Amino acid sequence: MKLASLKQGRDGALILVSRDLKRAVSAGDIAATLQAALDDWARSQPKLQARYEQINAGTVEGAFDLEMDKLASPLPRAYQWADGSAYVNHVELVRKARGAEIPESFWHDPLMYQGGSDSFLGPREPIKMADTAWGIDFEGEVAVVTDDVPMGCSTEQAADSIRLLMLVNDISLRGLIPAELAKGFGFFQSKPSSAFSPVAITPDELGDSWQDGRVKLPLLMDYNNKPFGKANAGVDMTFNFPQLIAHAAKSRPLGAGAIIGSGTVSNKQNTEWGSAIADGGVGYSCIAEVRMIETINSGKPETPFMGYGDTIRIRMEDSEGNNIFGDIDQVVEPYEAD
Amino acid sequence: MKLASLKQGRDGALILVSRDLKRAVSAGDIAATLQAALDDWARSQPKLQARYEQINAGTVEGAFDLEMDKLASPLPRAYQWADGSAYVNHVELVRKARGAEIPESFWHDPLMYQGGSDSFLGPREPIKMADTAWGIDFEGEVAVVTDDVPMGCSTEQAADSIRLLMLVNDISLRGLIPAELAKGFGFFQSKPSSAFSPVAITPDELGDSWQDGRVKLPLLMDYNNKPFGKANAGVDMTFNFPQLIAHAAKSRPLGAGAIIGSGTVSNKQNTEWGSAIADGGVGYSCIAEVRMIETINSGKPETPFMGYGDTIRIRMEDSEGNNIFGDIDQVVEPYEAD
Repeated sequence: MKLASLKQGRDGALILVSRDLKRAVSAGDIAATLQAALDDWARSQPKLQARYEQINAGTVEGAFDLEMDKLASPLPRAYQWADGSAYVNHVELVRKARGAEIPESFWHDPLMYQGGSDSFLGPREPIKMADTAWGIDFEGEVAVVTDDVPMGCSTEQAADSIRLLMLVNDISLRGLIPAELAKGFGFFQSKPSSAFSPVAITPDELGDSWQDGRVKLPLLMDYNNKPFGKANAGVDMTFNFPQLIAHAAKSRPLGAGAIIGSGTVSNKQNTEWGSAIADGGVGYSCIAEVRMIETINSGKPETPFMGYGDTIRIRMEDSEGNNIFGDIDQVVEPYEAD
Repeated sequence: MKLASLKQGRDGALILVSRDLKRAVSAGDIAATLQAALDDWARSQPKLQARYEQINAGTVEGAFDLEMDKLASPLPRAYQWADGSAYVNHVELVRKARGAEIPESFWHDPLMYQGGSDSFLGPREPIKMADTAWGIDFEGEVAVVTDDVPMGCSTEQAADSIRLLMLVNDISLRGLIPAELAKGFGFFQSKPSSAFSPVAITPDELGDSWQDGRVKLPLLMDYNNKPFGKANAGVDMTFNFPQLIAHAAKSRPLGAGAIIGSGTVSNKQNTEWGSAIADGGVGYSCIAEVRMIETINSGKPETPFMGYGDTIRIRMEDSEGNNIFGDIDQVVEPYEAD
């Protein structure tokens, strides 16, 4: 099943999207918003599924052509956005660039930060920032959306709670991170509003590519319309989604609609740090990783962070080349406060 | 105006509460939930205000006796919960206990962490935890609820965005904090579900006690039914609420209903570290602070963190001794996962 939210009010208007992303139909009579559908999934899921089959068969009334520009984030705002850092290769690289080893515990205790969830960007909305000196970077990730998850859940319960999958651009302000982390309380200003893929899908849409709580497909990153990364989200993911969910729920329940992210997708590719697409590798899912490799190799970073006008496109294709989630496609623009 | 949410569904049912906290009346015809009222405050506020005047005058139809046990958190779940640490005395004490100085920047750059907001506890709900070795502590705080706040807002815009005030028990798991902060990504498991006061109030309810974006009243903390703290929330608050809101909105907008906390209320009281109520001081708003003073004075902490059966009550009275927000009143209980 593929679900999306037309821009409307604060929470969008729920629609079903055909598997080929071409057609859509309102689901507002089943649940007004995606959050409402998730709040009562046992009731809404069978009705949504029935209509999804109709739109794919071309038999539903009221279908219309899908216009990606009219879509908000599937959840325009959410009650929980917790982002893991499951590709420990990425974490190791960050530390290596500043001459530090990662603690051994990082291989069995997930890193996770609490994100802000009240103002997500639409998948085609610009990344407006007041200052490029803040070091604007994209981060390509996969995320799951859960049902209610009880505190202290097992990984089996966590696996059963996964309702939807999305792609993420976890925008980061690299220039603000060192000072913010040095304060000891984690990210805040350095993690502005994230963007999600136009469409959220149920795991069954992935077929065999959804295995062991991981998405076994490349995450395609185009930076300024050139291939930048195609790391496989199912490779080198040290912690799978059920483990990330169980980590998040250790001391609290998670509410329906909680979004749990994978962290930046990163593959080691049998090399020390992976390599760029131009060098025959799978490339990278954020600029910071390239800069870290440059730092390791030559003592200083060379690739700048995003400037005004730079674009980032994030998508995922199935084994036949069909776009699964639609594209996150964003441009960086100046922001001026009123 | 005093607002609360009867336990009902995921988001409660909005009610108006009389100034003396004795009577209540549904506001469901104006806005079904407090979040819905905040989403459209310009429309809902005058209608709520008119009914609030009626309930205080005893002229409203359908009023009923308020039963505190039937209340959920005013916002049972929220889209944003960002907690500052505005009482820098508290921060200084934490660092001092481990032999560290606070950076000078802490006096002009607020500390703030991103909290989780999908599963708040009701004001009378137990704090259920699987393990007391996690170091269960209360933290008494004040919080504001904002309207929409644009990215990069001024402190004047931030001040104008404040719609409501609440008290908070920002429950912390002290035993999990050192290892979690050492990982560098801030709090997650160490900050379980927070609890808020039964009633949220508009700032005008505080009269002259709402000054310069601070609440100039003591925060009364009773631990196991004995006075533990009465620190004044308007004293030693280095950053006021508009400054905390502007900090939170530096690189992102805040959505209506965003909750911004003050951090643990802490007064220096012309002594080096403040002193206990038994010693004639104003006491403390969390156990950790007492333990830090014990550590500074005698090399090790003596007061244990909360055990099963321990209770914490948090309230605030006006200058005539009237309870303003109702009591947060919680007991620690064992939690067993299904």
